[in-house]
Amino acid sequence: MGKQEKLVKDITSMEEDFAKWYTDIVKKAQLMDYSNVRGCMILEPYGFAIWENIQKILDKKFKGLGHENVAMPLLIPESLLQKEKDHIEGFAPEVAWVTHAGSEKLQERLCIRPTSETLFCEYFSRKVHSWRDLPKLYNQWCSVVRWEKTSRPFLRSVEFHWQEGHTIHETQEEAQNETMRMFNTYADFCENELCMPIIKGRKTDKEKFAGAESTYTIEAMMHDGKILQSGTSHYFGDGFCKAFDITYQDRDNKPSYPYETSWGMSTRIIGGIIMTHGDNNGLVLPPDIAPIQIIIIPISMNKPGVLEKAKEIYNILKEKYRVKLDESNQTPGWKFSEYEMKGVPIRLEIGPKDIEKGQCVLVRRDNREKSFAPLDNLDNEIKQVFIKFKESLYEKALNQRNSLMREAKTKDDFRKICSEKHGFIRSMWCGKEKCEEILKEELSVSSRCISLLDDKISGKCAVCGEDAKHLVYWGKAY
Amino acid sequence: MGKQEKLVKDITSMEEDFAKWYTDIVKKAQLMDYSNVRGCMILEPYGFAIWENIQKILDKKFKGLGHENVAMPLLIPESLLQKEKDHIEGFAPEVAWVTHAGSEKLQERLCIRPTSETLFCEYFSRKVHSWRDLPKLYNQWCSVVRWEKTSRPFLRSVEFHWQEGHTIHETQEEAQNETMRMFNTYADFCENELCMPIIKGRKTDKEKFAGAESTYTIEAMMHDGKILQSGTSHYFGDGFCKAFDITYQDRDNKPSYPYETSWGMSTRIIGGIIMTHGDNNGLVLPPDIAPIQIIIIPISMNKPGVLEKAKEIYNILKEKYRVKLDESNQTPGWKFSEYEMKGVPIRLEIGPKDIEKGQCVLVRRDNREKSFAPLDNLDNEIKQVFIKFKESLYEKALNQRNSLMREAKTKDDFRKICSEKHGFIRSMWCGKEKCEEILKEELSVSSRCISLLDDKISGKCAVCGEDAKHLVYWGKAY
Repeated sequence: MGKQEKLVKDITSMEEDFAKWYTDIVKKAQLMDYSNVRGCMILEPYGFAIWENIQKILDKKFKGLGHENVAMPLLIPESLLQKEKDHIEGFAPEVAWVTHAGSEKLQERLCIRPTSETLFCEYFSRKVHSWRDLPKLYNQWCSVVRWEKTSRPFLRSVEFHWQEGHTIHETQEEAQNETMRMFNTYADFCENELCMPIIKGRKTDKEKFAGAESTYTIEAMMHDGKILQSGTSHYFGDGFCKAFDITYQDRDNKPSYPYETSWGMSTRIIGGIIMTHGDNNGLVLPPDIAPIQIIIIPISMNKPGVLEKAKEIYNILKEKYRVKLDESNQTPGWKFSEYEMKGVPIRLEIGPKDIEKGQCVLVRRDNREKSFAPLDNLDNEIKQVFIKFKESLYEKALNQRNSLMREAKTKDDFRKICSEKHGFIRSMWCGKEKCEEILKEELSVSSRCISLLDDKISGKCAVCGEDAKHLVYWGKAY
Repeated sequence: MGKQEKLVKDITSMEEDFAKWYTDIVKKAQLMDYSNVRGCMILEPYGFAIWENIQKILDKKFKGLGHENVAMPLLIPESLLQKEKDHIEGFAPEVAWVTHAGSEKLQERLCIRPTSETLFCEYFSRKVHSWRDLPKLYNQWCSVVRWEKTSRPFLRSVEFHWQEGHTIHETQEEAQNETMRMFNTYADFCENELCMPIIKGRKTDKEKFAGAESTYTIEAMMHDGKILQSGTSHYFGDGFCKAFDITYQDRDNKPSYPYETSWGMSTRIIGGIIMTHGDNNGLVLPPDIAPIQIIIIPISMNKPGVLEKAKEIYNILKEKYRVKLDESNQTPGWKFSEYEMKGVPIRLEIGPKDIEKGQCVLVRRDNREKSFAPLDNLDNEIKQVFIKFKESLYEKALNQRNSLMREAKTKDDFRKICSEKHGFIRSMWCGKEKCEEILKEELSVSSRCISLLDDKISGKCAVCGEDAKHLVYWGKAY
């Protein structure tokens, strides 16, 4: 442990300064870097490789559900952005405007897409004529620009990468089902592949997407008790269709408005992975999205047969896993520390004595548990370890979240909880924005989501004491 | 043939109007559509699926050669774009400028990347310190914006999708090797996967990339004899490194300038595929990039057993191929025509009589050749047909190109050839830009590339009669 301890000191411990711990990891694991455009980031190879793995899994899920990928333009004419009233109000303050091309002034300003509802609507208005043209289930992978005042790696930046799904349907019911289907797809992805426990719910009117009838959200608690909105799915009703004059001939040959949805998940989720699973030695990555799932480190590399055996293991494992053999001249201690920092789930150490015994040392990144794995059954051993690894990650995060899940029946309860640690606060709410504003102003907590379950703590709003309508999860948001 | 003939009439024949034939295919095969932003296109699902297949193949090749994907920002500050003199001169007239964010005017204008050399250089200047940091082999998949005056689907548009590789090396030789390696990667991809014969060469100084020391290019001839630049690889020497002050400590502990390359291929290549292989019935797609490789069409679908058998075949083939079973209510004739339009390489027809005989009808898209394929050996049969299909596509295109490959020894030869059909013109050149300009002005042909082989037609420049330096391929460019 001696050598590692020394290297580990390069990261601030999370107990000392959580924000610094976070940016230290981002920097040391070489996930991203700032560019010299304010608030714009560079996704470095290791960070981008995580995003590529996320893309691969989600893209497969989307296509399996019948979605097709498209690419809409990067630019939106001002007149198009203005068509839906709530939408323009929500996004106008933070869009980047293109006014000139070469040395010429443009006749109409164009904004860089902050999101692409308006572009999809314009396209649908030309393509949808009959009920036979419906539904259309589209998705695109791209980056968008929102001129945020502050920025933090992955969590908030002027440009960020995401996918945005946009669908259009014959009936209200079909569109609502699509909204829920994609909402559940995100929830399952977070829980199963990213091992992140999440709370599923609906946004209040104050917090919903600009132009949506309802927004469904998954909310995850980070190590520091603050809450990260991790994916959203919106039901638009026919609002955008009316604004963009999208009509189709229905099954009774009458003109009708279709119904729309949109849903998105962004590189923000990488920030969520870091702050859910990371520790004071660096990143801890769930195997499904780890760029390197297994690192092989030869011990006493110059002894005869060691490197050969390591290569043999590498060649077998690479058929099934993303595996790397580090045969560089660094010391084993340096390598241990390096790949712990990078969050590689499994480390295999192989030295002369191991070879003699037909085994290797297997070390789990999450709990540093060491075991001996027989070389003739390595694949099966690894499969089992990955299953346990994922279960432990999820359980640990769930226990942490449950330990910071508290209830407030009164404003005094809120005040008391907020003076302690961040976390989720479950509380009844009357449905009025005024009460949300009071909690926001006085205690800096916002409504994260309205519970979808029929659960209840009391009959009265914790803020105003009037009749409660919903159970709401509150917290300090990222 | 009766039914098809009727439907096929929807496409203008290429002999009648080549440009209209091209846009008809783009529209009818639903590859792309214009948006309401001038010159910006929408890649529709079928067109984007072709691009995704191209991406998948190239990305695998790049990664196999050690390249890593990254994501640089979309925006470049004006001061950064201006650092390399030739580069800014080349791109300034056609960049889009962001001047405002929300309601605020920016202190410095930002352009939307027309290409990302300057961003990579800025990043390298912060990351490269020692020879141990070299080489860095990066690539990104993104879209770029160049404010072109005219636009044509895939061939020319304000926004287009591409990949851009950017690498930095210790030595001149290593960078030159990288330039040639990626150049050859593009050439192999065009010839092997896209079945497009290409001419490999180097650009003249007049035609090379703004800021490059040399540009290598692959040039392909389209059906109409016009030439499409299909991929380029640039060697920068240390020009950009000097402009951006990128230095590293070399193996002798002295500060040194590294050497750079960049290379790119864009959605333009989809235009190339259409105009190399397409015919008057629509698209013809090489199997490696076809979104649907095999279409199964049941005949007499309502007869017992037909749909079951078709599904059985579908389930077997889908393990290995991108296959679709069309069980819609359209007539077989409509379906034949539809998937011919979409360029699907193989059509399988399966009806009651075929089932009795344990076979199906296999029709090749390129030559409409019909054969009977035994159901118990279908996979092998298809494998063989794909090999022959690719060979035929390549040969047909090569023959067409060779038939329009002519030589000019004098300006009169040039004049005569240009009065006939477009195509490649091989001719000796003195190396002076003046002679390039004369041919451009008088005959609308430009130098496509300088031959890399030591071939020779005569000793004198065909334009000025002075001593010739190079054999050059000329043509009318897209």
